[in-house]
Amino acid sequence: METRVESDSIGRMMIPQEAYYGVQTQRGYENFRITGRRMPAEMVESLVEIKKAAALMNQKTGQLDKEVAEAIVAACDEILAGALRDQFILDPIQGGAGTSANMNANEVIANRASEILGGPRGDYARVSPNDQVNMSQSTNDVFPTAGRIMLLKMIPRLVHEEKRLYLALERKAEELDDVVKMGRTQLQDAVPIRMGQTFHAYAQAVRRDIIRLSRVEKELLSTNMGGTAVGTSLNAKPEYVAGIHQELQQVTGLELVPARDLLDATQNLDSFVSLSGALKIQAVTLSKIANDLRLLSSGPKAGMGEISLPARQNGSSIMPGKVNPVIPEVVNQVAFAVMGNDFTVTMAAEAGQLELNAFEPVIFDRLYDSLSMLTEGLKTFTDHCIQGITAHKERCAKQVHESIGLVTILCPAIGYKKAADLAKKALAMGISVKDLVLAEGLMDFRTLEKALDPHAMTGPKREKPSMIRAV
Amino acid sequence: METRVESDSIGRMMIPQEAYYGVQTQRGYENFRITGRRMPAEMVESLVEIKKAAALMNQKTGQLDKEVAEAIVAACDEILAGALRDQFILDPIQGGAGTSANMNANEVIANRASEILGGPRGDYARVSPNDQVNMSQSTNDVFPTAGRIMLLKMIPRLVHEEKRLYLALERKAEELDDVVKMGRTQLQDAVPIRMGQTFHAYAQAVRRDIIRLSRVEKELLSTNMGGTAVGTSLNAKPEYVAGIHQELQQVTGLELVPARDLLDATQNLDSFVSLSGALKIQAVTLSKIANDLRLLSSGPKAGMGEISLPARQNGSSIMPGKVNPVIPEVVNQVAFAVMGNDFTVTMAAEAGQLELNAFEPVIFDRLYDSLSMLTEGLKTFTDHCIQGITAHKERCAKQVHESIGLVTILCPAIGYKKAADLAKKALAMGISVKDLVLAEGLMDFRTLEKALDPHAMTGPKREKPSMIRAV
Amino acid sequence: METRVESDSIGRMMIPQEAYYGVQTQRGYENFRITGRRMPAEMVESLVEIKKAAALMNQKTGQLDKEVAEAIVAACDEILAGALRDQFILDPIQGGAGTSANMNANEVIANRASEILGGPRGDYARVSPNDQVNMSQSTNDVFPTAGRIMLLKMIPRLVHEEKRLYLALERKAEELDDVVKMGRTQLQDAVPIRMGQTFHAYAQAVRRDIIRLSRVEKELLSTNMGGTAVGTSLNAKPEYVAGIHQELQQVTGLELVPARDLLDATQNLDSFVSLSGALKIQAVTLSKIANDLRLLSSGPKAGMGEISLPARQNGSSIMPGKVNPVIPEVVNQVAFAVMGNDFTVTMAAEAGQLELNAFEPVIFDRLYDSLSMLTEGLKTFTDHCIQGITAHKERCAKQVHESIGLVTILCPAIGYKKAADLAKKALAMGISVKDLVLAEGLMDFRTLEKALDPHAMTGPKREKPSMIRAV
Amino acid sequence: METRVESDSIGRMMIPQEAYYGVQTQRGYENFRITGRRMPAEMVESLVEIKKAAALMNQKTGQLDKEVAEAIVAACDEILAGALRDQFILDPIQGGAGTSANMNANEVIANRASEILGGPRGDYARVSPNDQVNMSQSTNDVFPTAGRIMLLKMIPRLVHEEKRLYLALERKAEELDDVVKMGRTQLQDAVPIRMGQTFHAYAQAVRRDIIRLSRVEKELLSTNMGGTAVGTSLNAKPEYVAGIHQELQQVTGLELVPARDLLDATQNLDSFVSLSGALKIQAVTLSKIANDLRLLSSGPKAGMGEISLPARQNGSSIMPGKVNPVIPEVVNQVAFAVMGNDFTVTMAAEAGQLELNAFEPVIFDRLYDSLSMLTEGLKTFTDHCIQGITAHKERCAKQVHESIGLVTILCPAIGYKKAADLAKKALAMGISVKDLVLAEGLMDFRTLEKALDPHAMTGPKREKPSMIRAV
Repeated sequence: METRVESDSIGRMMIPQEAYYGVQTQRGYENFRITGRRMPAEMVESLVEIKKAAALMNQKTGQLDKEVAEAIVAACDEILAGALRDQFILDPIQGGAGTSANMNANEVIANRASEILGGPRGDYARVSPNDQVNMSQSTNDVFPTAGRIMLLKMIPRLVHEEKRLYLALERKAEELDDVVKMGRTQLQDAVPIRMGQTFHAYAQAVRRDIIRLSRVEKELLSTNMGGTAVGTSLNAKPEYVAGIHQELQQVTGLELVPARDLLDATQNLDSFVSLSGALKIQAVTLSKIANDLRLLSSGPKAGMGEISLPARQNGSSIMPGKVNPVIPEVVNQVAFAVMGNDFTVTMAAEAGQLELNAFEPVIFDRLYDSLSMLTEGLKTFTDHCIQGITAHKERCAKQVHESIGLVTILCPAIGYKKAADLAKKALAMGISVKDLVLAEGLMDFRTLEKALDPHAMTGPKREKPSMIRAV
Repeated sequence: METRVESDSIGRMMIPQEAYYGVQTQRGYENFRITGRRMPAEMVESLVEIKKAAALMNQKTGQLDKEVAEAIVAACDEILAGALRDQFILDPIQGGAGTSANMNANEVIANRASEILGGPRGDYARVSPNDQVNMSQSTNDVFPTAGRIMLLKMIPRLVHEEKRLYLALERKAEELDDVVKMGRTQLQDAVPIRMGQTFHAYAQAVRRDIIRLSRVEKELLSTNMGGTAVGTSLNAKPEYVAGIHQELQQVTGLELVPARDLLDATQNLDSFVSLSGALKIQAVTLSKIANDLRLLSSGPKAGMGEISLPARQNGSSIMPGKVNPVIPEVVNQVAFAVMGNDFTVTMAAEAGQLELNAFEPVIFDRLYDSLSMLTEGLKTFTDHCIQGITAHKERCAKQVHESIGLVTILCPAIGYKKAADLAKKALAMGISVKDLVLAEGLMDFRTLEKALDPHAMTGPKREKPSMIRAV
Repeated sequence: METRVESDSIGRMMIPQEAYYGVQTQRGYENFRITGRRMPAEMVESLVEIKKAAALMNQKTGQLDKEVAEAIVAACDEILAGALRDQFILDPIQGGAGTSANMNANEVIANRASEILGGPRGDYARVSPNDQVNMSQSTNDVFPTAGRIMLLKMIPRLVHEEKRLYLALERKAEELDDVVKMGRTQLQDAVPIRMGQTFHAYAQAVRRDIIRLSRVEKELLSTNMGGTAVGTSLNAKPEYVAGIHQELQQVTGLELVPARDLLDATQNLDSFVSLSGALKIQAVTLSKIANDLRLLSSGPKAGMGEISLPARQNGSSIMPGKVNPVIPEVVNQVAFAVMGNDFTVTMAAEAGQLELNAFEPVIFDRLYDSLSMLTEGLKTFTDHCIQGITAHKERCAKQVHESIGLVTILCPAIGYKKAADLAKKALAMGISVKDLVLAEGLMDFRTLEKALDPHAMTGPKREKPSMIRAV
Repeated sequence: METRVESDSIGRMMIPQEAYYGVQTQRGYENFRITGRRMPAEMVESLVEIKKAAALMNQKTGQLDKEVAEAIVAACDEILAGALRDQFILDPIQGGAGTSANMNANEVIANRASEILGGPRGDYARVSPNDQVNMSQSTNDVFPTAGRIMLLKMIPRLVHEEKRLYLALERKAEELDDVVKMGRTQLQDAVPIRMGQTFHAYAQAVRRDIIRLSRVEKELLSTNMGGTAVGTSLNAKPEYVAGIHQELQQVTGLELVPARDLLDATQNLDSFVSLSGALKIQAVTLSKIANDLRLLSSGPKAGMGEISLPARQNGSSIMPGKVNPVIPEVVNQVAFAVMGNDFTVTMAAEAGQLELNAFEPVIFDRLYDSLSMLTEGLKTFTDHCIQGITAHKERCAKQVHESIGLVTILCPAIGYKKAADLAKKALAMGISVKDLVLAEGLMDFRTLEKALDPHAMTGPKREKPSMIRAV
């Protein structure tokens, strides 16, 4: 492999001749080999978008030569179009608060821009990674802003899947609304509900998660761009500071705005904890639904057996005919992973010191993990599980009929204590509450039938699900 | 001790003759001796307020006899005024989804109401805990609603302390705004900032926490009262369901509203996870500020030594004259405890199954712990630490002068690479950047002085802190 | 209230005349009002035992006057016998790394010793809290050692309850070993097992937890006593350092030994994280068992319904006759709380800096909480749940008979694919696998009966449970 | 792409003609696209080793045809040698308790064995994935055992790095043992220690972590192989159950042994929680050391500035000459990630139900992540940070000289109170304690010099570090 020599304050280093990255990227590469993974495409793109916006703004303020600015913008556009992605070689978990990642972008863009202007790779005379590409910037404003942009691009995909799940649940609620089944509290037979109510309730929880997520999305729009090193905007012109967000909006299509206090925004990462917390609540919601579906489909004989999940694959390598709730199981696992990631994000945010939090890389890595897993998990949940659920109406009816929970309905008429005696008796005799009530002459048949009418027991049918716009 | 005999479906049991609680409370007492603590007063009051509201509403719908209703209300009012508190004997962590706690309230109120009506304790003929006091209710709507009311009473106290901290930080920012000091990123000398900026940044983070908390407060106002056992309002009259929230508003003074879907609201506890998450972010903010204050006051000689915290107590039993950052340290510990509680709340919320989450007691116990610790922790933080902080202006100035971080200011003029060489040289020679720049003739004295002017370096003085109303 | 004046480096302060504590305790009391609780008795006793041991050792090395030493020891013995407990007024969560707690002990002992020697309270001329009671000590070795002693006193109580649970599970395994039931994997019917195997498996998991706990117990025996301020034994005589652990052993009855490296032992709290981790695994085990028992007892009609838990209390305030799994539910909640506490302990341990971890108070507070909750939770679990469990043998048998899981047994004979077809067919036709196999002539009746013999299906009966000594 | 058709109980499916995997793998691939990653090589190898051992054992018991067994073994050996790795296409996070992963191995091996025997891909007549390759096995014993083997292969690499770190710390302790510096408690100047003591203390903490890890390693050696579906060994011959572990030992080189209770070992994953807990404690230790190094190297001017970490890369894209503690920072982040993973592992272990824990995939995924990140993090920590640390002896000495902490040494002579006054006075006057003591004539010069002798202050020089064997 042919090499060239580059040097920085630390010393000289051999770089592959064809590399667009330079000495600082190379150092980061050797220092941080932690996960074996590379920074995700979304992060690379976000960094490059910032570089493009900064070049445009620096040109406007007159600090950056038009020709150089245009070369930088051209280089950025190439990368955004998909080129040179193999030049972003760094591990997402890195020390240095993202300096290596920022310099990776600076170096690749500088070399490509330089090349566009006719210079060789590794010659930074015309376009220097630090002086031109990073002009008016610091890793400390670029990197967290790139993290925000990355996340803001990922959130809509997650919201899209949340909405699809919401709709699938509402549709399933419609479809199964006439299945009357036992409601269970503390896993014990309680009083009847309709299957539609079950799915409608799930949908509402998902709906709240969507609302929470959109709130957090807004929090993320405030960036510290223009703050440079510590938020005091050192080495950035006031015109640049005033205009960089408009430029960023143009380039990214996101409603990015400057934070109220750039020092605060540089050192405090609470909005990422807020996002992680919102994802954690989603994980709680999803895990609860997944748990319920696994319970309701338990059996098919020796469990609750109220519903069947679509058979997605053979359940067992040894037990033929076994079909397992594999999709809810993977949703549970995604949920556990997201909750664990929240711990990491929390610790990393708490560990920030003074003017900077140096632990943004692991925060972005884990939030990326959470967001992408949730998005994929939701997709398979909706498509491969929720939509195909069927109910065993007769089994549900039989369980309602057999259950002593029906005795609750008699309370207003005969009092809690007498009703409790009745329940005990029915259970001991092994007959249904209905039969016992009739046998004991406590209610005439018609009154009893009316009391046990599904609508009387389970409340009125819900109105049509609110349209997704209402979310 | 004289006793009376009471019985329920499980069997007969001896109860102290003078007890207002009854057999079901007694069973709960024997089953759950977990923490050695009792339910907090706020929880007892919230339960009793619900009982009062329900009695009033049941009277309005004609289900509850006027005389009995009035006796129940009178009993509730006595308890709310402080009476009979020793009759609430249960551990806050209990199985049964709060049934014991609910029955404790039902029994105490029933016995007291019965007494008011001239009956003996333990005789539930006129006022039964289940049939009259618990009329139209279930533990499953009463207990989570009581939890919400308890928390909604506690949140304003916390917000009050958050606002006091916010103001104290803003005032300190004003007071110390002319102290120029080194900013540090990754604990390494970076570029200068003003001490006022430091405290202003802290204040902004606290401000966001207040906003987040008020958002969550709104989430908590939706209750499932009227849903009874599983959310289907079984055994509650439609008029009761329609009116109970207005009654609750009257009694509690809180803007409580019915949840959109009562089944959902009975089984999903995401709003409590949301509260816990908001408290966790506060904990992150506070812990970061506490960490910073401990760093900035480290020394007094062999540390950063930029500020002094008020001396609150002797720091050491063996090292005379040592003054330790004891208040920030307790704030850190509160933060760690709140974060741990969030884990518990999350797990408990995730563990809900089907129509109910049976783990509300531990959720309320840990949220109570988090809220009260944060409130007290903030109070001592503001009063005993923040307000008394003083800065060592000269030491700060000396550190700025000595620091090589100043070299950053020269970058736009001489480029990153040359500036880096300069920094290295200054460090090696042990002289200040300023002196080296002058020695090397890179800038004339006046230009340099201007570049190093605090306002040039640290940005313009912030406008007056926004009034607390703006929060 | 009559008062006296005391002073320290911070200044003068009013102390209640009758108080045995002094100015430093008073300051701690005012600085830290966090939980509303006080230090637990076990912690007070551990502190006082250390003071006694130190006085005895200081007398032996000749540093402490015989008369003063004897007065200190007498004062300690009084407190250990139960006196003056109301003088320990501090919140368990406190800043200052336990200095306040240590000084509380020093002051109470000094005043009582002084009184024994004929002096008035508040006069420290003869017995000073710092110079005599705290002689050769620092909070930094006293407080963590007291924490260890406290925990080491609590662990055997927990182990005792773990062993009782273990035995109860083994006995229940014996008792129910002839109940054949469906095993379930992923909540789906799998292949038969015996109820005895279920409980035997639980017992083994508990057994491992006991072993892990005893390993951690050993870790805790290493203390940093004698290290004084930072582990260098400054101001402690070599004879004292060499002898203090023997003295501590005498006073406490625990096999306490000096740590290999006193600096390390002063700053690193990994053994507490290790304890917390062992408690967390116990919590996982217990929560899993509790979850299973709630599942297996679900129903009684519309669930698995294999077992009944003892009815401990009415399950519902609205649903008569409902019996809920209240004891497992409280065990789950204890488990969640213990897991949350582990988070707190972990964060607090990680936050130690340089020569000390200042966050021991919250670590001890949460470990105390975890240990006592687990001990109480186990007690109620064993006594009020496990021992009274009964199995529904016939229902279990019926479920086995109906289950298609039996088809697995045919695999070696007919292959996985054919067996899968059979399973599908049986499920579709709604008949049992057994009947289908006979109908299709795949096996003759005798061979099938033999294959379905419980022992053939579930493996040989286990040997008698290993005696508890084997744990 | 040419395809072939395969079918299972679910239905027919197109498979790429050249694929060695089959229909069940394909289904798993479509169901689970969660992380975008594939199962790690270590997991694939572990699965294949189990398949090889099982084939050998099945041949010995006479159940598996010699020719087929040899073909299976040959196929396994090819894969172990590196072939066919692209055929393992599944996401590590999958539902189904690892069934897809197990079937992926079964199908690839079956097809390759079939090919070796002259058959075409997709024809399972001779070698069926379920009947031959999976003979006597179930996913429920294969998958967790593969997880154990994978982890047991990774642990020694981690231990190797832990030992290298331990040695590097001990060597650094030797090297810097004559640097006397201020010890700090609660970040406040305390009493002097030697830099060697600092590093020796770190080494001891690492040493304990190694010991804990080796204990957990032993826990992992117990597997449930031979238990098949639920631990009852259904469809496995007693000779197979008795012999499979010996075969596994041969193939893997690990001391694998059968668990005491195969049901327990199938459903309880506490040993993985135990491993995760041990990794979490390591993370705590490492994070604490990393935090300390960042503190001690803070500055270089406006911080503690006691040590320099090796300059690994430019610290800043905007601040020239800044060198940041990038390696400790990445270690911190690894620690945070490991702690978060522990949360996930804990939740997943707690979520196991009845005879199986279906959440093993996420447990293995996160433990793999933790182990590999820790191994890599340690490597860079030792090589790129610890080994190159240098101390600033003079600055350390100056800080000791200036510190008022020295006053502690005078306590035994003049009492705590007088010493405290002295400290206050020295601080107020801005002179050193030493000078004040001389000025006030409290000690003569010689006595003072002796008291301030490094060895008197910091304790005797430690013996040579114990050899690594002693670990």
